[in-house]
Amino acid sequence: MPVPNVRHSEVDVLIIGAGPAGLMCANALANARVNVRIIDKRAVKVATGQADGISPRTIEVFQSYGLGERLLRESCEVHLAAFYNPSSTGGIELTNRTRDVTAPTARYQFEVALHQGAIESIFLDSMKELGVEVERSTIPTSIELSTDENQLTDPSSHPVRVALQRLDLPEGESKEEIVHARFVLGADGAHSWVRKTFDISMDGEQSDFIWGVLDMVPETDFPDVRNKSLIHSNHGSCLVVPREADRVRIYMQLADEDVINPETGRVDKDRMGPEQLLKVAQKSLHPYKFIPTNGISWWTLYIIGQRVASNFSIKDRVFIAGDACHTHSPKAGQGMNASMNDAHNLAWKIALVLRGWADMSLLSTYESERRKYAQELIAFDKLYSTLFSGKPMTEQNRDGVSHEQFLKAFQMFGGFTSGIGVHYSPSVVVNDSNQELASGLVIGQRFPPQKFIRAADACPIEIQDLLPSDFRFKLLVFAGNFGDPAQQARVESMVKDLQRPECFLNRYATPGKSSTDSRFEVFTISQGRKDDIQFMQFPTLLRPHWSKVLIDDIDVTGSFGGNGYSRYGIGPQGALVVVRPDGYVGAIASLDKVEELDTYFAPFMKTSS
Amino acid sequence: MPVPNVRHSEVDVLIIGAGPAGLMCANALANARVNVRIIDKRAVKVATGQADGISPRTIEVFQSYGLGERLLRESCEVHLAAFYNPSSTGGIELTNRTRDVTAPTARYQFEVALHQGAIESIFLDSMKELGVEVERSTIPTSIELSTDENQLTDPSSHPVRVALQRLDLPEGESKEEIVHARFVLGADGAHSWVRKTFDISMDGEQSDFIWGVLDMVPETDFPDVRNKSLIHSNHGSCLVVPREADRVRIYMQLADEDVINPETGRVDKDRMGPEQLLKVAQKSLHPYKFIPTNGISWWTLYIIGQRVASNFSIKDRVFIAGDACHTHSPKAGQGMNASMNDAHNLAWKIALVLRGWADMSLLSTYESERRKYAQELIAFDKLYSTLFSGKPMTEQNRDGVSHEQFLKAFQMFGGFTSGIGVHYSPSVVVNDSNQELASGLVIGQRFPPQKFIRAADACPIEIQDLLPSDFRFKLLVFAGNFGDPAQQARVESMVKDLQRPECFLNRYATPGKSSTDSRFEVFTISQGRKDDIQFMQFPTLLRPHWSKVLIDDIDVTGSFGGNGYSRYGIGPQGALVVVRPDGYVGAIASLDKVEELDTYFAPFMKTSS
Repeated sequence: MPVPNVRHSEVDVLIIGAGPAGLMCANALANARVNVRIIDKRAVKVATGQADGISPRTIEVFQSYGLGERLLRESCEVHLAAFYNPSSTGGIELTNRTRDVTAPTARYQFEVALHQGAIESIFLDSMKELGVEVERSTIPTSIELSTDENQLTDPSSHPVRVALQRLDLPEGESKEEIVHARFVLGADGAHSWVRKTFDISMDGEQSDFIWGVLDMVPETDFPDVRNKSLIHSNHGSCLVVPREADRVRIYMQLADEDVINPETGRVDKDRMGPEQLLKVAQKSLHPYKFIPTNGISWWTLYIIGQRVASNFSIKDRVFIAGDACHTHSPKAGQGMNASMNDAHNLAWKIALVLRGWADMSLLSTYESERRKYAQELIAFDKLYSTLFSGKPMTEQNRDGVSHEQFLKAFQMFGGFTSGIGVHYSPSVVVNDSNQELASGLVIGQRFPPQKFIRAADACPIEIQDLLPSDFRFKLLVFAGNFGDPAQQARVESMVKDLQRPECFLNRYATPGKSSTDSRFEVFTISQGRKDDIQFMQFPTLLRPHWSKVLIDDIDVTGSFGGNGYSRYGIGPQGALVVVRPDGYVGAIASLDKVEELDTYFAPFMKTSS
Repeated sequence: MPVPNVRHSEVDVLIIGAGPAGLMCANALANARVNVRIIDKRAVKVATGQADGISPRTIEVFQSYGLGERLLRESCEVHLAAFYNPSSTGGIELTNRTRDVTAPTARYQFEVALHQGAIESIFLDSMKELGVEVERSTIPTSIELSTDENQLTDPSSHPVRVALQRLDLPEGESKEEIVHARFVLGADGAHSWVRKTFDISMDGEQSDFIWGVLDMVPETDFPDVRNKSLIHSNHGSCLVVPREADRVRIYMQLADEDVINPETGRVDKDRMGPEQLLKVAQKSLHPYKFIPTNGISWWTLYIIGQRVASNFSIKDRVFIAGDACHTHSPKAGQGMNASMNDAHNLAWKIALVLRGWADMSLLSTYESERRKYAQELIAFDKLYSTLFSGKPMTEQNRDGVSHEQFLKAFQMFGGFTSGIGVHYSPSVVVNDSNQELASGLVIGQRFPPQKFIRAADACPIEIQDLLPSDFRFKLLVFAGNFGDPAQQARVESMVKDLQRPECFLNRYATPGKSSTDSRFEVFTISQGRKDDIQFMQFPTLLRPHWSKVLIDDIDVTGSFGGNGYSRYGIGPQGALVVVRPDGYVGAIASLDKVEELDTYFAPFMKTSS
């Protein structure tokens, strides 16, 4: 028999694993017209179950890719959290209800729940329109990274060699392919093959807590079945989360002896099936009844370590993201959110390097930003898990967790669990000078939402919608009060500075390309009244299109908008704000010091060759 | 040559004409799963130009068919109206800006503009999903209505015989078809063949005003190019309306001598082409420049009568809608809105009769409701046209129209031009008793929007979204303060009344059908606080699903909702409100007098046979 010819191919980015992290990255790169392939060992996509909670920040991120509308249409919104504690009659009773989201600047003041299969479909449909589909039933069998330093530092080289094998081809057809990639992303889950192949260690410890999960449409008299309910009972803790299509998910804490096989020390699904799980849930939810109307649609058991990978990349050529680099408990609903936001952080950096716009050094900020976040997540998770799993404080158990203690933690961590508080430290793309010019725009945090009025047509505009994930840096010119002659002179002088050939806008211009290929987009946000402002008074550099000038005013109905300058902490002298392509505040400068923005871009931005 | 067999077929509804009125009706009937066909003589749909303004009420109607999201995404919002008048230096200058929409209860406080082709596509795509497509290149050649009274009064008969001819079939193929229809709608435009065939006269007079229209993407220094601008100049009046994709439409008044051929007395397009129109526009817009950047994308001239058809139906079997029954000037943007709302009014009535739910007598309310509206529209149009076309008042012309006069009319007619104020008189489906129980819900007007909080999950809900155009009557139970024992007793007693076999809910139940085929949908709107209310306390008839109970409370952020009872003028004793399938308030009763609703339904509702 002849040896089949093994096919060789080149690709800019190869993504291994089509879960939420891999799909978020593939879709983002497809949007950026990057040459990307994504493989997955599964023959079909996840249909139901799995992770399902989407935090307020992740909804913003979906919105930034144009996927927010569909996410909100298909999912179930969670506005209230209800707290139940032991009652005097042996069951549980409602203690109180609070807002589920405690993050005043969140654009969406709720979480949403949707099963993982539906979330993946949102990405799959979006990618398909851009010509990218998951190659299924495909596994990597080997991966090698070149050790040639010249090759590693040359962004045009293909230093990663991955052997792929198709699992579903008929006998006789070539099942092997050698892919030469510029970059590889291992988004291949908690048992990541990429991570193990490169010997990246997971730092941290095994959790003490074992959890069971059940999905069903219940017949119930539980009053908070459509709210997120956090239940401390004398028969264990549980968490009830509403889902789309009348479904409910119940997370419940299990005792070791119920699920661990004493011989292997591992979780043994034979010891605890859906019927037993349902009994555990029903016991802690007593006196309320929870009867599945249509069976248990999904269930699982897990004991999970709270661990973070020691590295998130190998020489900025091979990356890992999602569960491959951090594992933790599911109770605060952070798993899928952290994974997708890893990919959101990485995608634009890879795209800018591939376009020749940014230096390779930009890529190192992926690990520095996301690993720090993962460590904070683990620390939070340990504390929260301990409080959540702790016995409730009762007359008999004075050492238990009090409701007040738990509620305080729930609210204190609101910034964290909502994803809104995620804060990237100073780096090559986060310059924390001049924070005082815009105290409400925290450098390193995502740009907060606010409604402004478009000067040309008085249309109310959510400013986050002007900051899509389109791989461009946004320059927001807060022009102050243009009606004041002194301020007008400052703005005009600033425009002259922006027109200098050595200014970043010109230095890093992409010659001959259309405006959609530009690296920068400029918006002007002025103080003033929509009834008076003539938007054509602004210098043309500040209004390349009529839609680019906003006013900090209320809308025609007087019901929203206004006070943007004050919320952002910007004075009448204005400020220049650079927003990164992922929506995070990168740098702030005063109108008189445009050159400070040149200094921001210089270390990582490349001139067009 | 053998005589080809002429094909005979039956259909429930045949619609002639696939403009906005015909498509609105076809889509609505397709939603109702009615057996419907729609034909049009044009081989392809309208691509651009034509009517384009969508009023706030029409946006609500689109939303009620699930088409609002797409309409809003594709169109251009108009929030401000700018008024220009002669300046002292011979050109025009801005006098002031006001809100474009003056209708405090409108859900959308703006108009939108989108070219007719895009609006038609919204319907065409929606219908296609439901299996209905326009049969193009097809004309009716004859139409006959049976004179047999038995046949005419039997809803299952097919008394309308229409001969159709295909214009695009190859030689030799049968081009003729005889359609036997239960109902026919003539939505075939201002020169309606259906109307003429049945000798329906148009009452009214020819307009004195001749208008020209231009569409373009201008290079301009006109500050209000993205607002609706109403311009009175000494060189004629014009109206500038922003459009999608940077386009602008200019309507301008023309002088008779410029466009009328003195020999024929008719508009002569050879006398005034796009270049001449542009010059007219530029003259009245002086000193602002308007230069087409990409040519004139569409233009037309018209002189139009302000006329209403003497009848809108022949024996409630053949109907006419849209331009076929009313023609008027385009300046207040009412044409397409009136047309689509004719169809919206008619579709549910036909559907209910075809389902056997309603008596044929319901159909007569189409003419009574829509003809009265058309007459009001013409009266409004005459007044508005006179003001709009009148010479501006200046030093030299003291008899001209003053800005104050015009502005006052613009705002006074806001309820009318927005479509919000449309008011149907008492009839078999509008019972104006008990208005005092809910003074803010005007019987005969559309049910006004308001945000309530869903009791089960604290999700803010726009109540109009619970009133889709799904061919069901909605019973809104304003339960008052259920926490008050006396009120609770009243509610429980009302529920007993609703459970009587002779109550409309039971009398007109559709046996054996699923809940989506039910004729009624019940919602409960309670006073109370989301933090306290247990929605399961309500009797099960008032909460057939957890999503059906709302509370008149603010949302978790405290930024909207609340005061619904007070806006609707409902006291703590509550009220029962019946909303028609088209979203109009049909009847109101007190909780103690459920039988008054039986009285409302009895004259037109049929029991299941």
